[in-house]
Amino acid sequence: MTTIDQIEPEETQEQLDRYLGTAAAAGAVWGRQTPRQRAYALSAVADSLDAEAASLIPEALRETGLSEARLTGELKRTSVQLRMFADVLRDGSYLRIVIDRHDPEFILGSRPDLRRWLEPVGPVLVYAASNFPFAFSVAGGDTASALAAGCPVVLKIHPGHPRTSQRTAEIVRGALTANGAPEGTFEVITGRQAGVQALQDRRVAAGAFTGSVAGGRALFDIAASREHPIPFFGELGSINPAVVTAEAERERGEQIAEGFVGSFTLGAGQFCTKPGVLLLPRGTELPARLTELLAHAPAARLLTSGIAQRYRDRIDEIAKTPGVEVLASGAESPDPSGVPACTPSLFHAGSATNLDEHRSVLLEETFGPSAVVAEYDSAEELRDVLAAVAGSLTVTVHTAKEPGDAEQERLSGITELAAEHSGRVVFNEWPTGVSVTPAQQHGGPYPATTAVSHTSVGTAAIDRFLHPVSYQNAPDSVLPPALREGNPLRLPRTVNEAGISHRWDSQH
Amino acid sequence: MTTIDQIEPEETQEQLDRYLGTAAAAGAVWGRQTPRQRAYALSAVADSLDAEAASLIPEALRETGLSEARLTGELKRTSVQLRMFADVLRDGSYLRIVIDRHDPEFILGSRPDLRRWLEPVGPVLVYAASNFPFAFSVAGGDTASALAAGCPVVLKIHPGHPRTSQRTAEIVRGALTANGAPEGTFEVITGRQAGVQALQDRRVAAGAFTGSVAGGRALFDIAASREHPIPFFGELGSINPAVVTAEAERERGEQIAEGFVGSFTLGAGQFCTKPGVLLLPRGTELPARLTELLAHAPAARLLTSGIAQRYRDRIDEIAKTPGVEVLASGAESPDPSGVPACTPSLFHAGSATNLDEHRSVLLEETFGPSAVVAEYDSAEELRDVLAAVAGSLTVTVHTAKEPGDAEQERLSGITELAAEHSGRVVFNEWPTGVSVTPAQQHGGPYPATTAVSHTSVGTAAIDRFLHPVSYQNAPDSVLPPALREGNPLRLPRTVNEAGISHRWDSQH
Repeated sequence: MTTIDQIEPEETQEQLDRYLGTAAAAGAVWGRQTPRQRAYALSAVADSLDAEAASLIPEALRETGLSEARLTGELKRTSVQLRMFADVLRDGSYLRIVIDRHDPEFILGSRPDLRRWLEPVGPVLVYAASNFPFAFSVAGGDTASALAAGCPVVLKIHPGHPRTSQRTAEIVRGALTANGAPEGTFEVITGRQAGVQALQDRRVAAGAFTGSVAGGRALFDIAASREHPIPFFGELGSINPAVVTAEAERERGEQIAEGFVGSFTLGAGQFCTKPGVLLLPRGTELPARLTELLAHAPAARLLTSGIAQRYRDRIDEIAKTPGVEVLASGAESPDPSGVPACTPSLFHAGSATNLDEHRSVLLEETFGPSAVVAEYDSAEELRDVLAAVAGSLTVTVHTAKEPGDAEQERLSGITELAAEHSGRVVFNEWPTGVSVTPAQQHGGPYPATTAVSHTSVGTAAIDRFLHPVSYQNAPDSVLPPALREGNPLRLPRTVNEAGISHRWDSQH
Repeated sequence: MTTIDQIEPEETQEQLDRYLGTAAAAGAVWGRQTPRQRAYALSAVADSLDAEAASLIPEALRETGLSEARLTGELKRTSVQLRMFADVLRDGSYLRIVIDRHDPEFILGSRPDLRRWLEPVGPVLVYAASNFPFAFSVAGGDTASALAAGCPVVLKIHPGHPRTSQRTAEIVRGALTANGAPEGTFEVITGRQAGVQALQDRRVAAGAFTGSVAGGRALFDIAASREHPIPFFGELGSINPAVVTAEAERERGEQIAEGFVGSFTLGAGQFCTKPGVLLLPRGTELPARLTELLAHAPAARLLTSGIAQRYRDRIDEIAKTPGVEVLASGAESPDPSGVPACTPSLFHAGSATNLDEHRSVLLEETFGPSAVVAEYDSAEELRDVLAAVAGSLTVTVHTAKEPGDAEQERLSGITELAAEHSGRVVFNEWPTGVSVTPAQQHGGPYPATTAVSHTSVGTAAIDRFLHPVSYQNAPDSVLPPALREGNPLRLPRTVNEAGISHRWDSQH
């Protein structure tokens, strides 16, 4: 078998230039279609993906080693995401239209007619993720939100599932073209070098990436050091600490142990929200129970040979760290695909506050089926560890189902720290299985993401690819239809009439 | 006289460390006050500034050379801005609270209870601007929006008006402290090196800056190259092209000439929205008329000796560029303050499309009372020039008051390019005099700003200093009060009940 993450055919200069040129040209058409027109095209993409499940799933099975149930669910998530963004477009409030009417009596002098909304930023370069061959790959959340915003997408295929990617790309392109999108609205590239060059190109307006800290930081640095820097929405690495309080352990220790094993081994531990470190009160039975549960855990294939190699190196490094005890020593076995399968590993790092020696073990992500447990003696120690987390997608807290006053008191400082250092605080559940909904937040301080104010999952992901524009005193016929006086697109708009400013002159 | 932009006393390491430490500690209190509590404190700051006008204005007059009318208006703008943000807090919709209720029947599997809102990012480092000693200095828009968001502010004073700054800082601190803000909510620093060091400090969560491209880019690079990069909201340089169509020239050429001179010389040309280049149809009387109007223009003092020196160098460079004609040669005269006063300069760069030789003259900002005119032959030439603008805060278009079909056709491509390359498109008015309102957009692609998705003027400026956090399945008592089931703070919230997802499974 080939090691499939080696195949990265490079585009020629001419090809890359043509792709970026058609993408830039497409923006002027796609970005100016009405939200409803784009909604129709996105729904068509969703329908085509659903209709092609029978050809997509078997290819993804071969390339990724993920289960059929997982891939079927993920493809459904992909089409649902597209339809959710279609609904966001139909609703129209994502445009945040605000109209300030001309006010000659405005407190700071005559106010002109001002109409503000959000417009697409231009072509977006999306780097597909390895671990979601559908939901964060070719037709995934980044693509869906960028297309919804009105931005053409140039997608760098992940070499871990190239055939699934090309097949998906054909479906996306076909459905877009058949539903009014101009050529260039969606292009794919495969070359690693082409992916770097495209990010440096003046025609690319933003980047979106899911992957490793090293790779993502290198791309972020390129985006930031351009002559004209562009936003780069990278999701890099997340330790996702999970805290168990003494009350929770007493209430349902067994359930927590089982839940933790299920969550950190789900999808062979290849989720960005995998709980990488479990912080336990000192002296419980949980470490022993976790060891038992893992003794007979099944092996699962990793996504690619490259990921397997990096995983192997990383768990060797953890196992050799002085003071780290191996609770479950994962074993590697051959798989017909040529990419190895692994049983889970679990490590015990001793005291949770031993950050001087165990910072990397406790606070840096391992991509694959392993996790670390550590023990704390007090709420204060717990806060010290959480305060040391640089940035995480999630923090999970297992507490009593109905926490009493003392527990609430202890939780308060922990919850506040969790919200400061992450984007999602999970209680009494596990962070894997990210719900795709309006209230979802999938982002966090660096290195979880490079843009703490944004999310890559949920409908708010569209905000990344929009920029505000105000039109001042524009003749009605020159305005974009969405902003015209008669509101021909029937979009939700906030209108500030004249006379609202008197109160800003008064004492409070 | 001292050259006042030289005074930059450096903080000691200990001082800087103490300021950053108290700011970080203050965040935990200030950021968790209710929006109404912070609104009360911001209104109190506004009232104190108004009450101290008699001491602030004379100091600012001495330090900046701006007129009393201008400074009085600017101080009013400053207090109005604070009250507007207080209103934003009282309204509460800036928190964008979304609640997704638990939905066991959710299309992608059971959906947990998720509650998303925006929380303050943490201490913000604000670099005050030279050209707005009140409205974009110590108590200006960046400070007001960061404090409103719940972020402590560490403010680097601009050396152009140090005494005004210190006096303002006393007033701000006094009013905050008297109204419930903890120590450290507002700190000022003066040292240039301290300003750089603070940006590198782990405790600072975001930066905001208004100033030169060179200085702003250097700071942006520091923010982006930190071990943990942070957002940096820099407003750097903007050429603000103004276009005059042939129809507009015929309709009201004289009025346009007068308006342009008024706008580019306003405040001695020291506004970020100064129209730096005027694009005229070939062969009109306007260049001659502008020359006449400027023949007797009065001199105005520049803000600081440093600004005067850079201005002098820049207009010398433009005047010496081959093919550039001097329409009005500004003269420098001494001023009692020691900082020179200048009459306006105007240059003619010939053909607007001569970008190979005149790119810097046509497309790079000159800070001070000068502008450039250039002529175009066709709508296509005009589009070529606008497409070459890297990024601008504004683009101004003078067209007929009631444009006919042919003019609308010509305007369409121009308006679209203007919206792509700027944040505000102004029709038949001038870009100076930025209205502080909800629909305002003061931002644009780089180098106008380093964050195209944001604004530094208007109520949307608060978005810069917030990050989303979702709480999943949280016990009610542990949630921030704003998200609790009973909505004790009575904030506007969007609630998505169970059962909304059925439509994402259907054909479109």
